[in-house]
Amino acid sequence: MVNNKDLDQTQTPPSSEQVDDVFFLEEEHSLYGVSEELVENVTSAIARNDGAFLVKVAGSLHAADVADLINKLTSDQRRSFIEAIKDHFDPTVLTYLEDSAKDVLLALVGTGTLATALSNLESDDVIHVIEDLDKQQQEQLLDAIPAKERAILEAVLSYPEDSAGRLMQREIVCVPNFWTVKETIEFIHNAPGIPESFYSVFVVDPRHHPIGAVALNRILREEAGTKIADIMENNLHLIPVNMDQEEVALMFRHYALVSAPVVDESGRLVGMITVDDVVDVIDEEAEQDIMYIAGVSESDFNDPVLETAFSRSRWLVVTLINTLIASNVISQFENSIHEKVALAFLMVIVAAMGGNSGMQAVTVTIRALATRELTSTNQLKAIRKELFVSIVMGLLFATILGLIGGWWLKEFQVGFVLGGALFCNMLWAGLAGACLPILVRRLGLDPAVSAGPLLTTTTDVLGYAIFLGLATYFLL
Amino acid sequence: MVNNKDLDQTQTPPSSEQVDDVFFLEEEHSLYGVSEELVENVTSAIARNDGAFLVKVAGSLHAADVADLINKLTSDQRRSFIEAIKDHFDPTVLTYLEDSAKDVLLALVGTGTLATALSNLESDDVIHVIEDLDKQQQEQLLDAIPAKERAILEAVLSYPEDSAGRLMQREIVCVPNFWTVKETIEFIHNAPGIPESFYSVFVVDPRHHPIGAVALNRILREEAGTKIADIMENNLHLIPVNMDQEEVALMFRHYALVSAPVVDESGRLVGMITVDDVVDVIDEEAEQDIMYIAGVSESDFNDPVLETAFSRSRWLVVTLINTLIASNVISQFENSIHEKVALAFLMVIVAAMGGNSGMQAVTVTIRALATRELTSTNQLKAIRKELFVSIVMGLLFATILGLIGGWWLKEFQVGFVLGGALFCNMLWAGLAGACLPILVRRLGLDPAVSAGPLLTTTTDVLGYAIFLGLATYFLL
Repeated sequence: MVNNKDLDQTQTPPSSEQVDDVFFLEEEHSLYGVSEELVENVTSAIARNDGAFLVKVAGSLHAADVADLINKLTSDQRRSFIEAIKDHFDPTVLTYLEDSAKDVLLALVGTGTLATALSNLESDDVIHVIEDLDKQQQEQLLDAIPAKERAILEAVLSYPEDSAGRLMQREIVCVPNFWTVKETIEFIHNAPGIPESFYSVFVVDPRHHPIGAVALNRILREEAGTKIADIMENNLHLIPVNMDQEEVALMFRHYALVSAPVVDESGRLVGMITVDDVVDVIDEEAEQDIMYIAGVSESDFNDPVLETAFSRSRWLVVTLINTLIASNVISQFENSIHEKVALAFLMVIVAAMGGNSGMQAVTVTIRALATRELTSTNQLKAIRKELFVSIVMGLLFATILGLIGGWWLKEFQVGFVLGGALFCNMLWAGLAGACLPILVRRLGLDPAVSAGPLLTTTTDVLGYAIFLGLATYFLL
Repeated sequence: MVNNKDLDQTQTPPSSEQVDDVFFLEEEHSLYGVSEELVENVTSAIARNDGAFLVKVAGSLHAADVADLINKLTSDQRRSFIEAIKDHFDPTVLTYLEDSAKDVLLALVGTGTLATALSNLESDDVIHVIEDLDKQQQEQLLDAIPAKERAILEAVLSYPEDSAGRLMQREIVCVPNFWTVKETIEFIHNAPGIPESFYSVFVVDPRHHPIGAVALNRILREEAGTKIADIMENNLHLIPVNMDQEEVALMFRHYALVSAPVVDESGRLVGMITVDDVVDVIDEEAEQDIMYIAGVSESDFNDPVLETAFSRSRWLVVTLINTLIASNVISQFENSIHEKVALAFLMVIVAAMGGNSGMQAVTVTIRALATRELTSTNQLKAIRKELFVSIVMGLLFATILGLIGGWWLKEFQVGFVLGGALFCNMLWAGLAGACLPILVRRLGLDPAVSAGPLLTTTTDVLGYAIFLGLATYFLL
């Protein structure tokens, strides 16, 4: 798939000792990726304008590492590096590049050269490169691509973002079921336009509906005269072209699929998705959930300072509003606190315990929704379970804290109020933790984004209100 | 890979209308997985002892769905279901089963039958099934497996858990580089013991060190006389047999690999890992991080009530201790609060804002460590960035809250103290949020487990202490 030139195959080495040095260091540090030493060597080569060295490094690295290297350079360095290597540029690098680096490259390499380079990639990789470009750049690039390929790309771009249609590759090998193994092998051997990488041959009926698949190793092991119909796997898992990529990934995981056919509304075979396309999707979806629950954006680690601060601040504004509401609730009990200051330091326990147990329930529910373990058929069961769990934990911690509180203030009633308030708040936390994400999802929103902050607001407000309310009623 | 019998291929249908019904309903609801309707039909078949129906259902479903179905039954129902289908049992189902269901099956099916069934699976799948069994069951099973296969399995089990050695399959196809395409095809066609599924042929030197790989589709497209040496991809990504599975997954993602050779300490080829083995690892690792940050176990959603409550309670004990410390800090300022009750409702704002901004920094750092974006070479840069981000956000929110606080209490100094305390706490939150996971990691612990609670304790304690301290000094 990747056309990396090996070190010995590139042209005359201008400073070969340095290159060996670089690789020795790299090997020592990590088994993959670009080492800091290599980055330093490259930046100093950029500084001394040693284009030959840069071409050599780029030629000897895996496309993923070239991209990694470019991503690690400053924008000026990126410009010089790309300028130096642009005539020996491996288009596969594009599929691994950050968006900002892609823009620099596009400006330097020029639409025409890039279009030619892209035509060496498979359609799913080309889509991956161009779908993130802005409308104008996209059109310029598409115009420079030959009409036939452009038509295919435009068809793919017409599918919704994050759908199976965007993920699939159009290049597939299809044969009819009455062919023999020999005919199939000859077809693969001779037909033009065979895809660069594929693991299975699809079997289609005259209407081009998929009816089976045969793995390549199976074809190699069968006798020449065997009919495809007799060896094909006919338990296919068809993927509708509009299926969301998250669903596609879950389906691949569920059946441990390696590749699956994609069909349009009329059931015709239009492409295939392979497991390597799905790996990134699985990871992205889980990553999104982690980041959203914590209130940060996915690209946070690589974003510049101001962008990061701005993006995180938006989430903190929610916390600010929440905590102002909670603060306002407390202020309603000003007199009670004035009379019994201990309430001020006990109330924070009720709020914190409720908040944390609620986050446990919310996180479990968000993930179960994301992995489709939680569906409309078992949601009542899940809510009931959270209710029972929070009753058990509520009783446990109410007892522990009640005893601690009573002993600390030498007042039996304080322990009673503390335990009672804690039990109510934890019960609410568990129940709301299970119900809120389900409700948010039903409203068509992403539960990972909104359920967490919503929940902690309620556990804070409720925690303070119940505890201070009970205390005012029973203790003063 | 999976030997599912299609619906029409099973023996005489005893109650075929029902089966059709079942599938109609299932199709309507979801594209994959087992529907609640099917589960209901199966439980009623179990109740009326309709073994033939159960065999038919099991035979028509994908192994993953049979496992899904068994996982959804109660333990009595599991027993009856497995009893009914045990003579037609597809061993692949085992690879998808929950541990508790595996035990039931083992007891009912018997070691001998199971051993025979297992010998039809590839070594990585067998390992997946037996590695979670307890020592005694494992030995019983191994004893029932023929000596040659047992030796292979024992060799694999000698590799550390979660290592590449456990993940790989031993069954690989190797050829020398001087062979032609024709010789290779004939070897694959005729050799006994060729693996069930493979996508590439590995090329080895006389010492059995891997020197290249050729994808099967490449072999099919080249001329018969072409030398393997001329078409092999020689840019291999070797995986040491002891490499942690998390590293393996990251390497697969980095290079978008489909399969990679595994080598032992002396560099000999001992197996291969394919991308479908890695999909689960990627997902598990991300899932672990999400769950640990929230303080729940990975299997939480499927655990019974008491187990869930116990496991979550252990995490809440940490919260309890944290909040008792914070509560104790507040109690030191009893007199200040008594004098100015407003401090009690303003202090919670400082703690909450510090806690949430700290969790943002902690989560980003934990994930960057997990994905190896954050390494020892760029950690200073990452910490510096967090520092700047928290200065920006600290100034922003200190100003906003200072104004709100001053206006609320009609006291300029209150706003000043509130803003100052908030700024200090957010600065600490950002700095500690970046440093704590790195330190925890350096101590050899999992940052996802411990960094979050550690951090919120400090932001709570520090938030209350700074605010109440400053207030006592400046306002009273």
